[in-house]
Amino acid sequence: MPNPTAAMLVIGDEILSGRTRDANMYHLSGKLSLAGFDLREVRVISDDRAAIISAVQALAAQNDHVFTSGGIGPTHDDITADCIAAAFNKPIDVRDDARHILEAHYAKTGTVLNEARLRMARIPVGAALIENPVSAAPGFTLGNVHVMAGVPSVFQAMVESLLPGLTGGAPLVSQTLRIERGEGDIAGPLGALAAEFPMLSMGSYPFQLQNGKYGSNIVVRGADGDLVQGVIERLAASFPQ
Amino acid sequence: MPNPTAAMLVIGDEILSGRTRDANMYHLSGKLSLAGFDLREVRVISDDRAAIISAVQALAAQNDHVFTSGGIGPTHDDITADCIAAAFNKPIDVRDDARHILEAHYAKTGTVLNEARLRMARIPVGAALIENPVSAAPGFTLGNVHVMAGVPSVFQAMVESLLPGLTGGAPLVSQTLRIERGEGDIAGPLGALAAEFPMLSMGSYPFQLQNGKYGSNIVVRGADGDLVQGVIERLAASFPQ
Repeated sequence: MPNPTAAMLVIGDEILSGRTRDANMYHLSGKLSLAGFDLREVRVISDDRAAIISAVQALAAQNDHVFTSGGIGPTHDDITADCIAAAFNKPIDVRDDARHILEAHYAKTGTVLNEARLRMARIPVGAALIENPVSAAPGFTLGNVHVMAGVPSVFQAMVESLLPGLTGGAPLVSQTLRIERGEGDIAGPLGALAAEFPMLSMGSYPFQLQNGKYGSNIVVRGADGDLVQGVIERLAASFPQ
Repeated sequence: MPNPTAAMLVIGDEILSGRTRDANMYHLSGKLSLAGFDLREVRVISDDRAAIISAVQALAAQNDHVFTSGGIGPTHDDITADCIAAAFNKPIDVRDDARHILEAHYAKTGTVLNEARLRMARIPVGAALIENPVSAAPGFTLGNVHVMAGVPSVFQAMVESLLPGLTGGAPLVSQTLRIERGEGDIAGPLGALAAEFPMLSMGSYPFQLQNGKYGSNIVVRGADGDLVQGVIERLAASFPQ
């Protein structure tokens, strides 16, 4: 059985404007790979209602799971929860279970649960909460869409809360062979192996050496570890270092 | 006149598998911001023919410019050029101008221009070449799609070759105010300013302090530098440090 498919939607202007280098995509892609989910696509979009709704609908229709990050805080540009509700045509309002979580958290820290903070208890009807052990305000799962925060420490904690409850697939075995030869020399033998073993995925990720010459990391991935190992050995034999 | 819109398409499995942390998206988004392009969306997809063609067609229809990275090397998984040609319904083959560039480069380095390397001279009919001062093999522009390499040093060099020839817009002025208060406290005054100045974009990017408390970077962007400055000053006055 093929592994469940996944997409990620990163919501917020900070990456598109060049202000911030992505961290959540890198974190989630690694976790999904280990848990046996096949991440097919990532989209980064701005805090724009129409863009969020249409991206969520497209990705939710094409994938088993969609993971979002960003836009669930208390400020005016935090519109993700309302957009997810609209994408699924569900009502949304402050929900008691989420409000109780915020009340308990802010009572402990002596912070006022003002109108802005209360926006973080807006949860679509039918959604299940995702626990946030870092700053309390929960994420949620609606249908096959998992809605999480953009602050990396909070995003990572929510992924930890969420992932063990999802049914993944067989983690793929991956091996990398570093070859200090140009891709143009590697391409022939590698292409022949890729044609001979269509059940494995083989990628070539070139890099530049300090001396200006090129090399490439060849990554072979598949469900069968012995097969992966055998292909790596044959490739290594073609390029004695 | 609004700034020209742009999208980026990152092609390749290495980011989706969690193997590599993105660098090209971060580089391009900063350059586009400075040159006055409005980057609306980034998509990351795998080396899959159908996925590449449909993403290119969708993004090219919705944006003034599309920038791609990855998949134009000599190995079997480098299928971007053929997919771009298919997306625009153009023929593609080894083109003389591109082959001459490779011949001259490899003659200098004493490398054989074998069949694999010659694939890098496959350029769609009607495309203009993008110069590659690092490793010679060119990128190309077809219609409003700019096709560049995935290796960061080569990608960056191609962006340098390409961008000065494109007509951008007014670079947006951006100022950041760091406020060491929770977003829930900032949200009210910030939301009022956002409503008062709809021609400016205001974002709140929260972070966690070492002591476990929260702060946020408030970013105000717009074409009018004086207006941006004035809003930053009003916001600062609301939150004396």
